[in-house]
Amino acid sequence: MTFEHRRRVAFGDTDAAGIVYTGRFSSYALEAIEAWFRATIGVSWYEMTTDLGIGTPFVHTSLDFRSSLTPRDELLTEVALSKAGRSSLTFTITGRVADSRRLSFEGRFVCVFVDKASAKPIAIPAPFRAAIMGAVQT
Amino acid sequence: MTFEHRRRVAFGDTDAAGIVYTGRFSSYALEAIEAWFRATIGVSWYEMTTDLGIGTPFVHTSLDFRSSLTPRDELLTEVALSKAGRSSLTFTITGRVADSRRLSFEGRFVCVFVDKASAKPIAIPAPFRAAIMGAVQT
Amino acid sequence: MTFEHRRRVAFGDTDAAGIVYTGRFSSYALEAIEAWFRATIGVSWYEMTTDLGIGTPFVHTSLDFRSSLTPRDELLTEVALSKAGRSSLTFTITGRVADSRRLSFEGRFVCVFVDKASAKPIAIPAPFRAAIMGAVQT
Amino acid sequence: MTFEHRRRVAFGDTDAAGIVYTGRFSSYALEAIEAWFRATIGVSWYEMTTDLGIGTPFVHTSLDFRSSLTPRDELLTEVALSKAGRSSLTFTITGRVADSRRLSFEGRFVCVFVDKASAKPIAIPAPFRAAIMGAVQT
Repeated sequence: MTFEHRRRVAFGDTDAAGIVYTGRFSSYALEAIEAWFRATIGVSWYEMTTDLGIGTPFVHTSLDFRSSLTPRDELLTEVALSKAGRSSLTFTITGRVADSRRLSFEGRFVCVFVDKASAKPIAIPAPFRAAIMGAVQT
Repeated sequence: MTFEHRRRVAFGDTDAAGIVYTGRFSSYALEAIEAWFRATIGVSWYEMTTDLGIGTPFVHTSLDFRSSLTPRDELLTEVALSKAGRSSLTFTITGRVADSRRLSFEGRFVCVFVDKASAKPIAIPAPFRAAIMGAVQT
Repeated sequence: MTFEHRRRVAFGDTDAAGIVYTGRFSSYALEAIEAWFRATIGVSWYEMTTDLGIGTPFVHTSLDFRSSLTPRDELLTEVALSKAGRSSLTFTITGRVADSRRLSFEGRFVCVFVDKASAKPIAIPAPFRAAIMGAVQT
Repeated sequence: MTFEHRRRVAFGDTDAAGIVYTGRFSSYALEAIEAWFRATIGVSWYEMTTDLGIGTPFVHTSLDFRSSLTPRDELLTEVALSKAGRSSLTFTITGRVADSRRLSFEGRFVCVFVDKASAKPIAIPAPFRAAIMGAVQT
């Protein structure tokens, strides 16, 4: 089952060309991945960094744009965990217009678990490992 | 000569992990490419869309993160036009901390000239072609 | 009945102090007012400017901050239309944490209907007038 | 001598109405106040929160909009410290188009020094007091 995150496209997301500004799409993707973390492992990025001293910085993000978005659209972002390494997670992201399922963008986002104090990579923390491994979609 | 764009890292660019939020880096890169357009072809994105009816939507953006940034850093973003096709431009982006030259991120951004009314790709407009071809770095 | 808009506080909304960045609150308020327009008069800001040539620029925004927000919080923003003039609308905004009802911010936002071509104020357009007058809360 | 902060208006700051989005102006003002802190007391917000455990959250922000901005404009934001209390600073903000001096917005922003650990207001820290008192404009 692929995780889905839904959000309205806001007027403030558009630019003078009348469509969503390129720089906004990475926020859309990150917001959907953030929701995936809460739903899948039950801990938010904020709790992870603040309470547990664990970070998940991204080492790669890429996006291919297929069609533009406007506030007429509701965005449905699919988040699939396509790979889990020792410390890294690779997400495949697909953004669609909610009702027509028109494809808007596809992306790949890779993050790494790190110890916040040393900024060094760490193995996926034990309490999250089972949930993460169970979420890998191949 | 590679084009360079300089900016301070703002407090509002950081997140609760104490470093610049992942979603901000595409704005940094786009802001530097926007400055490249003004400097190289003498027409801003705003003038292009508003006065000339020409858009330059991005079809691909990717970023690899090498080290984090904070407001202690001033960012120097290098913009190199690595390829110009019939209607597309491919930029190689390199973000460094200004004084130490420490590498922060590398990226590839591809945009396409389009007729705004039809949203169809068009050849690089004649008035811009010479300046663009002269800027290609191989 | 006061209109309510609900949203999660995102990790990307925070800053290095570990709370939502001051500059984000006006976006929260505007996003809630944007939802009020869709719900109350059935036309979005995007449709108004793109399809009808009508703008609603803000002439005043103010915010008083009562307590900070983090991604542990879900935000509930109440939007009340407190006054409707010939062309202006005055909104009273109240931001609360959804479950505890803890007050986070209070604001006053004033916008004016304008003809987009001339940028001159216009009377509240006839098709919206009844819905708007019916929404005024005194 | 009033402190001035200069910045280009970016394409990504605009919305589908072809002018700068309302929600961006508080970021413009905050960015100018942030530069004022670095210039006046020699410590950035980031250093204050990270190195010194001191916060300066805003308790009030208000903006009156006089004319719109586009990326054709370069913005010159004047920051005047109009009042310094025991723990609070009141700034008067004036945004103008750089070359024509056309007025775009006026604002009032009030922040309070707090101990980050307790979130309680503190007196303006001794090392900053002289520089701050010397900057008050009446």
